[in-house]
Amino acid sequence: MAVVLKKIAIFGVGLIGGSFARALRHSGSTARFVGVGRTVDALVRAQALGIIDEIAVSVEDAMRDADLVLIAAPVAQTGAILRAVAPHLQPGTVVTDAGSTKSDVVAAARAALGDKIGQFIPGHPIAGREQNGPEAAIADLYVGKKVVLTALPENSADDIARVASAWQACGAVIHRLDAAEHDRVFAAVSHLPHLLSYALVDDIAQKPHAGLLFQYAASGFRDFTRIAGSSPEMWRDISLANQPALLGELDAYLDKLQDLRQMLANRDGAALEAIYANAQRARHSWIASIEAAEQQHKQGGD
Amino acid sequence: MAVVLKKIAIFGVGLIGGSFARALRHSGSTARFVGVGRTVDALVRAQALGIIDEIAVSVEDAMRDADLVLIAAPVAQTGAILRAVAPHLQPGTVVTDAGSTKSDVVAAARAALGDKIGQFIPGHPIAGREQNGPEAAIADLYVGKKVVLTALPENSADDIARVASAWQACGAVIHRLDAAEHDRVFAAVSHLPHLLSYALVDDIAQKPHAGLLFQYAASGFRDFTRIAGSSPEMWRDISLANQPALLGELDAYLDKLQDLRQMLANRDGAALEAIYANAQRARHSWIASIEAAEQQHKQGGD
Repeated sequence: MAVVLKKIAIFGVGLIGGSFARALRHSGSTARFVGVGRTVDALVRAQALGIIDEIAVSVEDAMRDADLVLIAAPVAQTGAILRAVAPHLQPGTVVTDAGSTKSDVVAAARAALGDKIGQFIPGHPIAGREQNGPEAAIADLYVGKKVVLTALPENSADDIARVASAWQACGAVIHRLDAAEHDRVFAAVSHLPHLLSYALVDDIAQKPHAGLLFQYAASGFRDFTRIAGSSPEMWRDISLANQPALLGELDAYLDKLQDLRQMLANRDGAALEAIYANAQRARHSWIASIEAAEQQHKQGGD
Repeated sequence: MAVVLKKIAIFGVGLIGGSFARALRHSGSTARFVGVGRTVDALVRAQALGIIDEIAVSVEDAMRDADLVLIAAPVAQTGAILRAVAPHLQPGTVVTDAGSTKSDVVAAARAALGDKIGQFIPGHPIAGREQNGPEAAIADLYVGKKVVLTALPENSADDIARVASAWQACGAVIHRLDAAEHDRVFAAVSHLPHLLSYALVDDIAQKPHAGLLFQYAASGFRDFTRIAGSSPEMWRDISLANQPALLGELDAYLDKLQDLRQMLANRDGAALEAIYANAQRARHSWIASIEAAEQQHKQGGD
């Protein structure tokens, strides 16, 4: 039986938290949205934009009688927010988050919440835009996008359902992974590519003839390095938060590059072509599956 | 004083050679375009499409009285084409090519042409499309794009000017580098990113849980790996043709990744952030310079 949410508290009313509020309102939710955050300015703008109904004067105020709490502040603040939340966490409240890494969040939540850990359902919406802040928040950010919940053994089915239905009301598709599996997956398909892209641009930028090199860089380079335009602070935090899984993926990739280096040194064209052809085939079939999914959901992306 | 080109022979009437012919015609050239190639079918289609006026019955026929010869066949064929051309190369003919690597082409040309090497002006148009073949050829492929000429000490200024003006008539902007410099530049900004992108997709595709990983890959992964959708045969040939420079760039990149690995292992957030921030800054300023250039030329890309 679905609980009608009467009060939703959001820590961090930027793109992610603000779009969650807008999407729920758009779906017909009559909940009162209460914003909390370190930056009063952003909260005032979010209220003026109609994203939140009120600004909490304290964490205690925000938590009082909240049915659902979303932590959507920068990931480095998650631990501190959970510690601030803990003393005010009432039995009827369910807390979730939107962090890009999950094992570290689960560890922080266990430390902060103790025997209330069952009330925390870790989550990761796979959605974003280039812009940030409350002004970037839009009602359809999550339509057709994945939200991964990495539920804990202590979570009740009802509490998981409460978080899942809120995201589904935003148009998202719920996926379930355990936290370690989640972190390995995103280390491979997101965190490692970011690190590799940053590394290439830095490598080139540090060369004495960098100006000449950039002059001839073209559209292939532009696409390969688009993610190196992302926030360095955010990706520092993600790299550290997911360090064990990211190191594992980086080591596997370094092994692969050493193999390729050897093929190149040996001028082994057949071996190089086999790798390139396998990659091309895998990418084509991945793109075909995305396009099939987009037919269903009208959009994809992260 | 510009020579009016009366006969232009094109080895390979696909995207690159066909677009060259279309662009020159569009610029008002009254030259007769003669196609040569291994695939009769492509030549017949190119003639039907109005790209070439006639199909040469032999290399000798193609070369007879040609003012300009463009070799735009797959790079692996360049050496064989130059050897076939050599006995029929008349004093008034200038030969150029469109290969992505230049040191190997220069070596092949020296071996094939001997003391006629002065008549060969190596070139590399930095332009492309996803499609291939004569049907993909368009008159504006080269508008605002770079064409790099890596002229030889033996080339005469007049012969260089003949090749340069043909490309300029296509709308291209002429750049000059020496062959070794050209190959180092493109190893860094094009060939290495292709190898890295293929390596990542192959790395993921080979994992036992590849299906799960691809399921969560999103837009960042899509952009990073777009170039892994390129032709494996073509990139095998480019990798081998530019092997010395590519190995050098790969080794420099491996050193950079080892540095990053160490920072990550040490949880050195400040050092990671410094690399990420330097990359972000360099990319932003590169994009700004591209956009400024696009204002002038209306397009960029490769």
